Amino acid sequence: MVPFTPYRPPPFDQPPLCDSPPARLEPAPADGIAPERFHATSNFPEYVKLEEYGWTIAPRSRMDAVLVVSAGAVQVVEPRRLQRGDLVVVGRTENGEEGIFVHPDGFDRPETASDKFTFRSRGTRETPFSRSYDELYQILRHDREHGHIVWVLGPAVSFDKDSRNAMQGLIEHGYCHALMAGNALATHDLEAARFGTGLGQDIYTQNLVPLGHYHHLDVINAARAAGSIGAYLRDAGITNGIMHACERKNIAYVLAGSIRDDGPLPGVIGDAYAAQDAMRDHARHATTVIAMATQLHSIAFGNMVPSYRVQADGSVRPVFFFIVDMSEFSADKLANRGSAQAQAILTNAQDFIVNLWNNLKA
Amino acid sequence: MVPFTPYRPPPFDQPPLCDSPPARLEPAPADGIAPERFHATSNFPEYVKLEEYGWTIAPRSRMDAVLVVSAGAVQVVEPRRLQRGDLVVVGRTENGEEGIFVHPDGFDRPETASDKFTFRSRGTRETPFSRSYDELYQILRHDREHGHIVWVLGPAVSFDKDSRNAMQGLIEHGYCHALMAGNALATHDLEAARFGTGLGQDIYTQNLVPLGHYHHLDVINAARAAGSIGAYLRDAGITNGIMHACERKNIAYVLAGSIRDDGPLPGVIGDAYAAQDAMRDHARHATTVIAMATQLHSIAFGNMVPSYRVQADGSVRPVFFFIVDMSEFSADKLANRGSAQAQAILTNAQDFIVNLWNNLKA
Amino acid sequence: MVPFTPYRPPPFDQPPLCDSPPARLEPAPADGIAPERFHATSNFPEYVKLEEYGWTIAPRSRMDAVLVVSAGAVQVVEPRRLQRGDLVVVGRTENGEEGIFVHPDGFDRPETASDKFTFRSRGTRETPFSRSYDELYQILRHDREHGHIVWVLGPAVSFDKDSRNAMQGLIEHGYCHALMAGNALATHDLEAARFGTGLGQDIYTQNLVPLGHYHHLDVINAARAAGSIGAYLRDAGITNGIMHACERKNIAYVLAGSIRDDGPLPGVIGDAYAAQDAMRDHARHATTVIAMATQLHSIAFGNMVPSYRVQADGSVRPVFFFIVDMSEFSADKLANRGSAQAQAILTNAQDFIVNLWNNLKA
Amino acid sequence: MVPFTPYRPPPFDQPPLCDSPPARLEPAPADGIAPERFHATSNFPEYVKLEEYGWTIAPRSRMDAVLVVSAGAVQVVEPRRLQRGDLVVVGRTENGEEGIFVHPDGFDRPETASDKFTFRSRGTRETPFSRSYDELYQILRHDREHGHIVWVLGPAVSFDKDSRNAMQGLIEHGYCHALMAGNALATHDLEAARFGTGLGQDIYTQNLVPLGHYHHLDVINAARAAGSIGAYLRDAGITNGIMHACERKNIAYVLAGSIRDDGPLPGVIGDAYAAQDAMRDHARHATTVIAMATQLHSIAFGNMVPSYRVQADGSVRPVFFFIVDMSEFSADKLANRGSAQAQAILTNAQDFIVNLWNNLKA
Repeated sequence: MVPFTPYRPPPFDQPPLCDSPPARLEPAPADGIAPERFHATSNFPEYVKLEEYGWTIAPRSRMDAVLVVSAGAVQVVEPRRLQRGDLVVVGRTENGEEGIFVHPDGFDRPETASDKFTFRSRGTRETPFSRSYDELYQILRHDREHGHIVWVLGPAVSFDKDSRNAMQGLIEHGYCHALMAGNALATHDLEAARFGTGLGQDIYTQNLVPLGHYHHLDVINAARAAGSIGAYLRDAGITNGIMHACERKNIAYVLAGSIRDDGPLPGVIGDAYAAQDAMRDHARHATTVIAMATQLHSIAFGNMVPSYRVQADGSVRPVFFFIVDMSEFSADKLANRGSAQAQAILTNAQDFIVNLWNNLKA
Repeated sequence: MVPFTPYRPPPFDQPPLCDSPPARLEPAPADGIAPERFHATSNFPEYVKLEEYGWTIAPRSRMDAVLVVSAGAVQVVEPRRLQRGDLVVVGRTENGEEGIFVHPDGFDRPETASDKFTFRSRGTRETPFSRSYDELYQILRHDREHGHIVWVLGPAVSFDKDSRNAMQGLIEHGYCHALMAGNALATHDLEAARFGTGLGQDIYTQNLVPLGHYHHLDVINAARAAGSIGAYLRDAGITNGIMHACERKNIAYVLAGSIRDDGPLPGVIGDAYAAQDAMRDHARHATTVIAMATQLHSIAFGNMVPSYRVQADGSVRPVFFFIVDMSEFSADKLANRGSAQAQAILTNAQDFIVNLWNNLKA
Repeated sequence: MVPFTPYRPPPFDQPPLCDSPPARLEPAPADGIAPERFHATSNFPEYVKLEEYGWTIAPRSRMDAVLVVSAGAVQVVEPRRLQRGDLVVVGRTENGEEGIFVHPDGFDRPETASDKFTFRSRGTRETPFSRSYDELYQILRHDREHGHIVWVLGPAVSFDKDSRNAMQGLIEHGYCHALMAGNALATHDLEAARFGTGLGQDIYTQNLVPLGHYHHLDVINAARAAGSIGAYLRDAGITNGIMHACERKNIAYVLAGSIRDDGPLPGVIGDAYAAQDAMRDHARHATTVIAMATQLHSIAFGNMVPSYRVQADGSVRPVFFFIVDMSEFSADKLANRGSAQAQAILTNAQDFIVNLWNNLKA
Repeated sequence: MVPFTPYRPPPFDQPPLCDSPPARLEPAPADGIAPERFHATSNFPEYVKLEEYGWTIAPRSRMDAVLVVSAGAVQVVEPRRLQRGDLVVVGRTENGEEGIFVHPDGFDRPETASDKFTFRSRGTRETPFSRSYDELYQILRHDREHGHIVWVLGPAVSFDKDSRNAMQGLIEHGYCHALMAGNALATHDLEAARFGTGLGQDIYTQNLVPLGHYHHLDVINAARAAGSIGAYLRDAGITNGIMHACERKNIAYVLAGSIRDDGPLPGVIGDAYAAQDAMRDHARHATTVIAMATQLHSIAFGNMVPSYRVQADGSVRPVFFFIVDMSEFSADKLANRGSAQAQAILTNAQDFIVNLWNNLKA
């Protein structure tokens, strides 16, 4: 059984939607420039009424892109990727009156009754997470076979022995179809493999190891000399960890560069927008995303991921987005930046991942 | 094997300590008033050189109390409990020159080498906690039989189904010899037993239940009518939860009242200083303390607990103090208030306790 | 001009409210026990329809109390203060159908239009606070003459020279009609006056002063010997600070004891429920509350304060509640505990108070 | 008078330093690859003993770079910028025994006495900041004429009317010689200029404006069409704000791209390592850095900035680094990543900047 509620499409055969005009289209005036009054997408299901084709869903929406129409299909395109002359949907209403309909309620369960007053209307660290975990286990078991699970990781998961082992286990057992991260996650995972430390601190004993601040620099230097992460894993005889599991299991990973990087490692994408394109390729296919202990990558990927996916048979399913972080601020910030469907689990990434693995490995 | 390093007492037979004068004693000038230049205790091992008896350890120190000498014994007394005429140790040096010696290094392991520069000198949520957990399991298994484990709990643990079950399991299996908490922990644990909610929110589904904001008030009202928590458990037919486990297993608990309380429940100690006295009785015996998701009670109890304990055979063992909280600020605050030996595990109480129970129940 | 929108009372002369039955009353079955199905109050305006008197407002509501009717008046009483036989309003609807009406919208401004999607729906540290400050200046200038301003303070404000001076200035210039705090605020304010430190740290240079950890203990000991805070101020020749300003200006203060206290100072109320009663006396009169850097006292006082006040002429005005804290969690927690009208300003108390004083002193 | 303590150079004429051997040099084996056992720099003053020249200071150090020697001068070079054959200092001791000396204590004041026990050994939001502000005012007044002040800004400062005005004022009055930021700061500053909003929220009233989520997208689209930020400012007739002040006063700014960006604006540097190079040019000249409300840029820039600067006359002065953030974690993280000299002021950026401007504008 699928672990999600079925999708209710909008009532396009009833007024007022059946009477909507077709959407207006205008050509992009130049490469990378949208026409005035362009419609900007959300990550909710977005529908456009096309002259000959009627209401058409944008198959893979995202925050803050535009809709380009061509041959009866609607594509979601980042403005910087527009080409002069592309036909862009214009109009800033979302209720159908300009042929554009945004549908945030397709997966909603019936409302629970509401009092004038309730306690605990805001999610915090005190929110009970037992069911979030149980649902997550169910979703991951389902999507391992029938979906596409994308992990977005900050370096913290590689700083601790048990959590690094747990992440390795999840990858090796099919619970990760793609990994989004930065130079630091890969660097410190390799540092842990090679030296047993993270930024010079033993990942088990917490001891600061003498000359440990050289470890990540030596790893980077050697990996750059080897020419690729794969080559370095072989050269250094590494047989454990997150990067090793990805390489062994042929799991795609995107390492996006940042101004905070040492090195970088070979394979890190230095250009932020090339990195966005590479991440977006995975965002398009994601059915479940777990973003953990990184504000930068979580918000970046959150902006790229639709809240729904049109499947091969035309049916629509939800895309789950879990954010795991220690602070209410990070979860709120993601919501404030447009990823309202993101479900927050406020805890330490180490415990989260160890819990997850304990429950899924059985 | 005991899970701690042996204690190295101070070298009292060597200079300069062998030449220390006896400590000066002065009578308390009035009830609850200390003489000028009174010596204030830390939670480290504190020694006083007594005229006839020589160097004598204060058996159960704590922060910010005074030392009262009587019949060759040194007692650690809160200033407000002094009685006029009590002989109080005076002197504000700690190195023996006034007959007072504070010994913070008795359990230290040999230093690791230090560089001029290291990363990661501060503990944060990114500190690896695998070993902290492993040590904690070992300590708890040891102290279940041979020690006295005290839990200090905020209400959060009762707000979630799995964590409430885990805490109940720990109590029922001998991992809790005393429980320090407030009115809220008990109230919401009983609310969960009676209604399945915490402040009106379902502890599993996260749903806000209609009229749920009455649940804790109804529980309090009924418990007040019943006359005691034990009577209410019987009347309401409650057979699960934290308070039920304590009652069933005869585990002592102290519920300290606060200005934030509804009710209060019967049995809550309204007077803050009477509550301190009740808590202090348990602090004296504690060998391991786990303080979780409460700043108020953690700091209060942290100030009362020695970092060591003199055992029946005269040997000295460490007292472990773990603080589990989400924020660096809480852990730092505890350190800034004098509980420097507290070991922080920065995570959500829910995950912590579930992890713990998963590992100890086997 | 008054700095708030006028109150719109409920439409009691229209259906369905004009047809409401009178509220049911039942006697309290015992001292401190409410009858079943008692109505619990919110801090919104609460109305009860009385047999002979019609719709009657509860003049000073608060969270989680009950309504007692006597001689045509409705009193808001904490359940523990009920006396056997008191006539308590019962019924758990809030829309008039049982003669009880809760009115949360009386001060609302007309809604702004809403999109299906907006960014920034949650208040965080990134929320712009310029207008919050401007409104606060206006309110404080108004309420200095025409209202009752209550401050709820954690100790942090006394740890810094400039912020302590600012608070002193606000009190001396009439911007504080009552002060709610704990033993720590008073202790460290006196420590600053006497030694220039807060817990031994210089409040200007940040230096940790030798033997500084004795300062607060010496202050407490001397104040206890003096018998009162006023006597200690005189004995020690103290002429500055928060407590001095209160004493000099005859500003009432309530110091509520807690299990975290050293001492306590003379005048601190050790019994939590006696302290609640003392605080509630001020909550009843408050027109503006500023709660700063204390979770315990903020939530406690927040639960006691109505969101409105019936003035001498029968008109109803809002009661403002500002919470100043560093963390989203603290503000969310206050909202989750029922003080939804509280307006959060997320910043350091030091800067807040210095800003305030800079703007009000002119 | 200069607002800093004079530098005490290492005692190179005394043993053991006078007996140090010259440092070993090895050629880089390939472009971007360091030789084995390369010496990695800290941001403290670093000295190398050169064969013919004796002890030579590396004029502008930074974290995690290498030392390249050429013609008697020592250059600090990021490993990725090495060219095959560059002569790199090797050796991993720091005390002179391999001709390398790291000198962290050059600006230290004499130690204050230390007790075995002190409270408040950790900096938190409760640390008193009055003096930090006073010193900062002094430093900024000095460095306005005699130094190079670099600001590192997250977008928060542009989300609030008063803080945006304050930052504009600081730039216009000479308190900013270079600005490091990302696409978001510039975008939302321009959004504020054009629409009075930040991500669609009014920067004064906090209201969410209808269709406000289009504002930043429209700004980006129009600026991209205009071709540069300067051109857009002219086209849109903008006469206020942070970017306008920079353009008008000819203040250099570096906008580093990230994977989180919409757009980007013209002028944003998409390649992370090209952005690092641009930032490093300013890091080299910085005498005071204020990094505010951005973890990414603060840590990135913090890693590039020396803790000292060799001035034209050969004398050495400290480089000040202030980090302004809401959370202890951010400040600790910066310290854990090697910027130990950073001084944290834990508060909201809005209040900080308004305070600063109030004091400097006079």
